[in-house]
Amino acid sequence: MWLHTSTRLDFNPEVATPFLFMLRPRSGSQQWIGREEYLIAPSVPVVEFTDAFGNLCQRLVAPAGPFSIHASADIECSMSVDAAPGVAFVEVQLLPDDVLPFLLPSRYCESDCFYEMAADLTAGYLPGWNQVRAIVDHIARTIRYTPGSGSILRSARDVNGCSDAVCRDMTHLAIALTRALSIPARMVVGYLESLAPMDLHAWFEAFVGGRWYTFDPTQLDLDGGRVAIAYGRDAADVAIFTQFGDPVPLTAMQVSVQRMNAPPTDPRR
Amino acid sequence: MWLHTSTRLDFNPEVATPFLFMLRPRSGSQQWIGREEYLIAPSVPVVEFTDAFGNLCQRLVAPAGPFSIHASADIECSMSVDAAPGVAFVEVQLLPDDVLPFLLPSRYCESDCFYEMAADLTAGYLPGWNQVRAIVDHIARTIRYTPGSGSILRSARDVNGCSDAVCRDMTHLAIALTRALSIPARMVVGYLESLAPMDLHAWFEAFVGGRWYTFDPTQLDLDGGRVAIAYGRDAADVAIFTQFGDPVPLTAMQVSVQRMNAPPTDPRR
Amino acid sequence: MWLHTSTRLDFNPEVATPFLFMLRPRSGSQQWIGREEYLIAPSVPVVEFTDAFGNLCQRLVAPAGPFSIHASADIECSMSVDAAPGVAFVEVQLLPDDVLPFLLPSRYCESDCFYEMAADLTAGYLPGWNQVRAIVDHIARTIRYTPGSGSILRSARDVNGCSDAVCRDMTHLAIALTRALSIPARMVVGYLESLAPMDLHAWFEAFVGGRWYTFDPTQLDLDGGRVAIAYGRDAADVAIFTQFGDPVPLTAMQVSVQRMNAPPTDPRR
Amino acid sequence: MWLHTSTRLDFNPEVATPFLFMLRPRSGSQQWIGREEYLIAPSVPVVEFTDAFGNLCQRLVAPAGPFSIHASADIECSMSVDAAPGVAFVEVQLLPDDVLPFLLPSRYCESDCFYEMAADLTAGYLPGWNQVRAIVDHIARTIRYTPGSGSILRSARDVNGCSDAVCRDMTHLAIALTRALSIPARMVVGYLESLAPMDLHAWFEAFVGGRWYTFDPTQLDLDGGRVAIAYGRDAADVAIFTQFGDPVPLTAMQVSVQRMNAPPTDPRR
Repeated sequence: MWLHTSTRLDFNPEVATPFLFMLRPRSGSQQWIGREEYLIAPSVPVVEFTDAFGNLCQRLVAPAGPFSIHASADIECSMSVDAAPGVAFVEVQLLPDDVLPFLLPSRYCESDCFYEMAADLTAGYLPGWNQVRAIVDHIARTIRYTPGSGSILRSARDVNGCSDAVCRDMTHLAIALTRALSIPARMVVGYLESLAPMDLHAWFEAFVGGRWYTFDPTQLDLDGGRVAIAYGRDAADVAIFTQFGDPVPLTAMQVSVQRMNAPPTDPRR
Repeated sequence: MWLHTSTRLDFNPEVATPFLFMLRPRSGSQQWIGREEYLIAPSVPVVEFTDAFGNLCQRLVAPAGPFSIHASADIECSMSVDAAPGVAFVEVQLLPDDVLPFLLPSRYCESDCFYEMAADLTAGYLPGWNQVRAIVDHIARTIRYTPGSGSILRSARDVNGCSDAVCRDMTHLAIALTRALSIPARMVVGYLESLAPMDLHAWFEAFVGGRWYTFDPTQLDLDGGRVAIAYGRDAADVAIFTQFGDPVPLTAMQVSVQRMNAPPTDPRR
Repeated sequence: MWLHTSTRLDFNPEVATPFLFMLRPRSGSQQWIGREEYLIAPSVPVVEFTDAFGNLCQRLVAPAGPFSIHASADIECSMSVDAAPGVAFVEVQLLPDDVLPFLLPSRYCESDCFYEMAADLTAGYLPGWNQVRAIVDHIARTIRYTPGSGSILRSARDVNGCSDAVCRDMTHLAIALTRALSIPARMVVGYLESLAPMDLHAWFEAFVGGRWYTFDPTQLDLDGGRVAIAYGRDAADVAIFTQFGDPVPLTAMQVSVQRMNAPPTDPRR
Repeated sequence: MWLHTSTRLDFNPEVATPFLFMLRPRSGSQQWIGREEYLIAPSVPVVEFTDAFGNLCQRLVAPAGPFSIHASADIECSMSVDAAPGVAFVEVQLLPDDVLPFLLPSRYCESDCFYEMAADLTAGYLPGWNQVRAIVDHIARTIRYTPGSGSILRSARDVNGCSDAVCRDMTHLAIALTRALSIPARMVVGYLESLAPMDLHAWFEAFVGGRWYTFDPTQLDLDGGRVAIAYGRDAADVAIFTQFGDPVPLTAMQVSVQRMNAPPTDPRR
């Protein structure tokens, strides 16, 4: 399936302000970037680098005045995500080295506070994929997905017990509980076709049965049509923009995802 | 100056238990490992790898029953750390790419909650080294260094306002405040000569004037004689051991640091 | 300056054949990818990864039958390259760690065979940029740039003494001589505006005065308008395609570089 | 099995000279460093870093006058290496990304010149381990292992057809032939118990059946007791020392490997 994705961000800083963006999805084993554009107005020098998680990051200084970024792409991705009931827990000593950091507690996922709750929630479930699914189901059942609710400072500990939360919050809680079982979990920020209201989205992946599997506590009914923009331990690692210095308001933000009728074709053919 | 450092850890797990250790200091630009040993009893297979921060990590499964690790080394390090009053703040856009992660909030250093406090504490100080020193002085003045106090789950937010704390806590608070000023800060765990009571120690480094400088909120009077074992965002990254599964008590732990009268010499000369 | 670059490759394998491509330029400190497309026909799964030099590499298995790749981009790059007469040699002990591999001999740049020749050619020149320029001038004066000449197996040793050679050959010889002076040198493959006949091009960079500087033994008169696709030790690291198994002929190849009158603009504005 | 390994190098430079050493073996999945020392006389500042292949490298400037390095270690390693007749060739598209560089031609292993010879030598053998073994047997049968023969500049192309060669040469030829079959191969420099005459040794590993297997064209009868010091594409990557500037003679070199009767023990027990 081919999707056309687009994010436009508008700012209006009073003084020149350094920014870090993560808005260029990468091709990988799950998705292929067939066409892409990344426009900046007014034009300023940009330096791109790859962070420790493999994400492409763009560094620039936005000048004073109206400033906008528009990143869009045509991307081939899967129609569905793999569900894998019964897939087994991987003993910690058998995990690949580079997966180990995703077992540790992080800014918004204090897994070291959730051992008991994770054990209780998953008692009786087969170790592995089924435990993660039990966590996701619990969160989906007990917290209402309410876009716009809450604060950007909420961590898993804060979210636990809330009645309303955003995708980021519910994902943080799910990650904290998953790691508390010694199952590696990482956050994904990206696009999801048919999300309503449309916005950038957050979900997570858990490492069971020797690979990463997708889980999404806020969208039990939506499945494929996912494009990952960035991976990390939690929202601190995968902010689509990080701004330094005095706060600069985001004056407008538009996100869209459209299914394409056909793959992008070569205009020369 | 040459130091002989030593850490011995004893465990007694009831069942075979996976562990991750960070007990092998690395040579670098600040310290040279002239002689080293790393003994494990009973002998089990160990796999060593380098993590994303460059730390050497040892993975093993401890069998049921008494189990001990003894890591010791002869290390050349500096007699003093560089103090650098007046060294300047580095604009974020000029920071090296690999320093940027140390600006982000992390598990025990919620820098995103400390913008106002950091600005208040450092008002009137020259941006850069002097600001970090002002933070360190504030913490040293308001929190009593009390080995053994507190809980391993305390983060900077929890520590702020406490009257007593350990080196790890005071360092976390200092890191959170430093990052809130857009100054990169990273945690160090290691050895410090003359620390009383002797134990493994935690301090931090801040990136100002184009390089990392050492700061220690609990030891304003001790200076050089520092050996770094591991670097990371906070204690989650630099635990000297991480144990998975049911908790295994540490039955004994001995740490020592001795100044050597002479460098290690070649027995063959 | 904005350039529109395009490479199209056509193959016709008799059996399914694994390929490795490097056809996606990366944004960095020297160039910005504003718009890009990478089309494959017929469509097959592609996996992209980043190699040890930071290049984006695409792995796929081409099916039997006609197969084509078309990669094009709109890229902002510099109007000129920095000339830096007098810029100094960097003592080896002061080179950054990650620059050291570019001092070593490699497949097509046997620098260990060129110590004497390099010393002779650069006698009397100021150590650093001027020495590299003397090497480049010598090669430009003694070897005729003859597109289509020679063999893909020719190394610097083979090229030395030839009267005719391609950009790849002359660059290999220049790199070998530069490294023989303990000056790091790396190969670049990419696009060059106004190259005649138009083709993909090879040149190199030498590390003097604390950074990389561009040199091109075949194009003393062309300057800016360069887009790097890949960096490496020599042509073995930066082949735009590597094919495994029985040889598959390239049935057609088209490369173009056009200067754009204006930057790419947002169709929505 | 525990081995005590030791290398001592003596130099006598006329002027201060930058050096790069690789003399500190790393613990990994195949070997464990229980005790180690690395002594330098006279003492000079040393900086250690990890190269792209994971090797620990030591950088220093040797002062004018007598200068020596003595690196020794107690290391646990295997009694034997795995022989694996029948283990299968891995299709290139299934190789891990980080193994791909070991398919490319390199300074001393011009695999791009050996397609025909490799095909001829291995005709009729099962693709994979058996082909590599056929290459090794051919080299052992046709080239006499003659310590001290040849030149350090000899590459696989030069060695092919020689009657006498050193371990480095025979390994280069074997690697070139193995890569010509699209089987990844990497060079190892290290210690081998019972090697006669005792010296540092070179052998190689080939990637078949999903992992690296050890092969040694000069020591068909010696098996285990191997300690790897460094891995790379060929001798250019794994020189135990690289010296820059005017040549400095090695005035003495002593290498020893002794089997230990017992593992190193804790003097405190």
